[in-house]
Amino acid sequence: MSTKSRVSFSQSLAKWIAPGIGIKRWLLLLLAGIFVAALGFAFFILNFLTAQNQQYQPVNWLFPVAAIAAGILMMSVSLFGYAHWLLLPYRKNQPAGIIDTAYAYSKRHKGIKVVAIGGGTGLPSILRAMKPYTSNITAIVTVADDGGSSGRLRRDLGVLPPGDLRNNIAALADDESLMTQLFQHRFNRGDLGGHAFGNLFISALASVTGSLESALIETARVLNIQGQVFPATMDEVDLIARVYIGGKEVTIHGESAITGAKGRIEEIRLSPPNVEAFAGSVDAILNADIVVLGPGSLFTSILPNLLVPGISSALRATKALRVYVCNIATQPGETDHFSVADHVLALEQYLGRGMIEVILANNAYPEENAGKNTVYVMPIPQDHEILQRYDVWMDDLVDVERPWRHDPEKLAGVLLQNRPQVRQNSVNGSVQKEADSLVKT
Amino acid sequence: MSTKSRVSFSQSLAKWIAPGIGIKRWLLLLLAGIFVAALGFAFFILNFLTAQNQQYQPVNWLFPVAAIAAGILMMSVSLFGYAHWLLLPYRKNQPAGIIDTAYAYSKRHKGIKVVAIGGGTGLPSILRAMKPYTSNITAIVTVADDGGSSGRLRRDLGVLPPGDLRNNIAALADDESLMTQLFQHRFNRGDLGGHAFGNLFISALASVTGSLESALIETARVLNIQGQVFPATMDEVDLIARVYIGGKEVTIHGESAITGAKGRIEEIRLSPPNVEAFAGSVDAILNADIVVLGPGSLFTSILPNLLVPGISSALRATKALRVYVCNIATQPGETDHFSVADHVLALEQYLGRGMIEVILANNAYPEENAGKNTVYVMPIPQDHEILQRYDVWMDDLVDVERPWRHDPEKLAGVLLQNRPQVRQNSVNGSVQKEADSLVKT
Repeated sequence: MSTKSRVSFSQSLAKWIAPGIGIKRWLLLLLAGIFVAALGFAFFILNFLTAQNQQYQPVNWLFPVAAIAAGILMMSVSLFGYAHWLLLPYRKNQPAGIIDTAYAYSKRHKGIKVVAIGGGTGLPSILRAMKPYTSNITAIVTVADDGGSSGRLRRDLGVLPPGDLRNNIAALADDESLMTQLFQHRFNRGDLGGHAFGNLFISALASVTGSLESALIETARVLNIQGQVFPATMDEVDLIARVYIGGKEVTIHGESAITGAKGRIEEIRLSPPNVEAFAGSVDAILNADIVVLGPGSLFTSILPNLLVPGISSALRATKALRVYVCNIATQPGETDHFSVADHVLALEQYLGRGMIEVILANNAYPEENAGKNTVYVMPIPQDHEILQRYDVWMDDLVDVERPWRHDPEKLAGVLLQNRPQVRQNSVNGSVQKEADSLVKT
Repeated sequence: MSTKSRVSFSQSLAKWIAPGIGIKRWLLLLLAGIFVAALGFAFFILNFLTAQNQQYQPVNWLFPVAAIAAGILMMSVSLFGYAHWLLLPYRKNQPAGIIDTAYAYSKRHKGIKVVAIGGGTGLPSILRAMKPYTSNITAIVTVADDGGSSGRLRRDLGVLPPGDLRNNIAALADDESLMTQLFQHRFNRGDLGGHAFGNLFISALASVTGSLESALIETARVLNIQGQVFPATMDEVDLIARVYIGGKEVTIHGESAITGAKGRIEEIRLSPPNVEAFAGSVDAILNADIVVLGPGSLFTSILPNLLVPGISSALRATKALRVYVCNIATQPGETDHFSVADHVLALEQYLGRGMIEVILANNAYPEENAGKNTVYVMPIPQDHEILQRYDVWMDDLVDVERPWRHDPEKLAGVLLQNRPQVRQNSVNGSVQKEADSLVKT
């Protein structure tokens, strides 16, 4: 690139006027259009002047009007041809209309600045919710993952586990695109069995570029994603938990083992504790309009991000609206029997009060499609202390097909459009009572 | 895409005039420029007309000239702004200049139609040679490979072996680009050790799209390659050879085993023999200006393509110039002690006479950098029968760093520019004699 940028202006000009490159026809047509329109315009003025002085016979009014119309037509055709020619090398196999692409790009580029913090499974619903409205989305995800394909790559190649990064990058990409499908493709046979292609992609790019940061930038480019996905930290970090299992307290290392233990999590921490926050993540939080925590596993997806000291400092410093999106269903081995209030109290235990301003929780508990394993998160009891400390927004957020998950469109509606209405809902006791009746005892 | 293409013209128009998308400023500036230039032009015409009739006082000549100049400047600025705006969504992270990109695209798009037939290791030099001059390059490669990463994928995933496809796709891509480096990256540890990332990429894409053909199209798009890489056949095919080893004749299955046997190859064939040629490959040969066979392993890279009946038929039918590029060095276990003539006679054995018109061979045999293992291919003896049947072009084709390989620039020079001079060289006895003295006995 460096040699290309050094070519002189005259060389560049020479290319514009080089024979046969297809641009001159459009510029000539533009000039011809201007000439014809100007001719019509000149005679228009002439007619106007002569109309005041009967000595000259005015030319036919039809000529100026026709010439101006013809000139405008020629200029329009030329501008379309010019645009088409310019875009040819860039549009290969990109069938979407030029103006659709330009319009969507321009609109999303000016959208609100959203930061979503969480992990692999819950966060994509926020990202899918926001990507039609803005390109200014930053997903911050944990890299403490040590299970599955990510865990194998972490052990085999010594790279940061890419799984959570991958899922969120895919959520910000065009779901229909072949590259996104490829990215989420899992090999099912042989040595490669179980590996997600996107994990191999990120890992190989990290090896080639020498850094995960460059790998993420290039991945974003190839998948043409809206926004960016950053790790909370680039340091290698493990998750350690004190867990009660059958009355005994044990210390468990590693995200996948903690979730697998199915005990009651007493405390969770990072090892080492003082890892450095990724600068891009800190910047994104400080410059955001809205920061959304979750949805996602409280102890293994959300808290591992917030336990990075730089991330929680940035959260305290930002002027963004800070919203905690509570899960719809409880997670076995992590948040059994947790109400919305229990989730928030757990956050307060680690982060203190004042870290978040708004609690966004679901108030629809459909039985259809829920299956036996879906245990809905219980609503906040009506006189609970946290109702004083936080703005609570409650709304129907469930995906009707899989009601243990958030519906991206409903989430977007609440976060972007229906704020006042939702605020009212939160102090409306009838909603609370209806929800209370669903609590399992 | 289907829904997008159905949007009506009025919706599309609405987007052009939507507020804040950044295009109207350029169109308004263009209109203003047209107006100012047309006004100047109109007064120019008016002055011209009134100059012939002294009754009117002509306006100052300065005004029309200044107005036309200002109008052209406004239009130029507007056209640049319009181009920049249109290209924004497509140019993300593509720092090359707009006009450089458009110029190179336009020039290469009109280049001569080249087909190169061979395999993994030799063919890239032809592709690297041609890609600066034309985008109309088709590489046709064998898919009988069964060694290394390709062989493992063939066994594990049941896909066509991607290795030779990968090397040639990379040769047609921008060597400096990160994606090309990624494509050629080999994992060196764990389960993935030895796999080339590009092989995984092609295999995963073939799984996702359901066909190798779509996978190759998408790969070409992602790597933004000049030209295309096709297999000789999409059918699964094995290479079988009768080989003399230590006085005994044995039958060996599989490309990697044949090369590994280090015997003398008596006969080579495909199993099954009547595989169907890939239609894209046949079309490319029929429409080519020049078809180049090789360089590459005679028995394991070039012949496996030509043994596909549809490929050899197309070669006989095409009006393209057909050039055989002979290897520079002999290959142990394949072409030990072979002269240029022996290579051609081996081709004739399988394809009959008249399949090729031109033999391109090297006549430089440097000792520097050659190492002990480089045994140069001996030139054609001066009175050899094949000199009557073929046009023989001889020239210095060696890569000075690795003299057993072709230098892409020298190859391009001979194939594109120096034909007459080279034809003369071929009948120049002194070159022959010089070469003869290097023959090892």
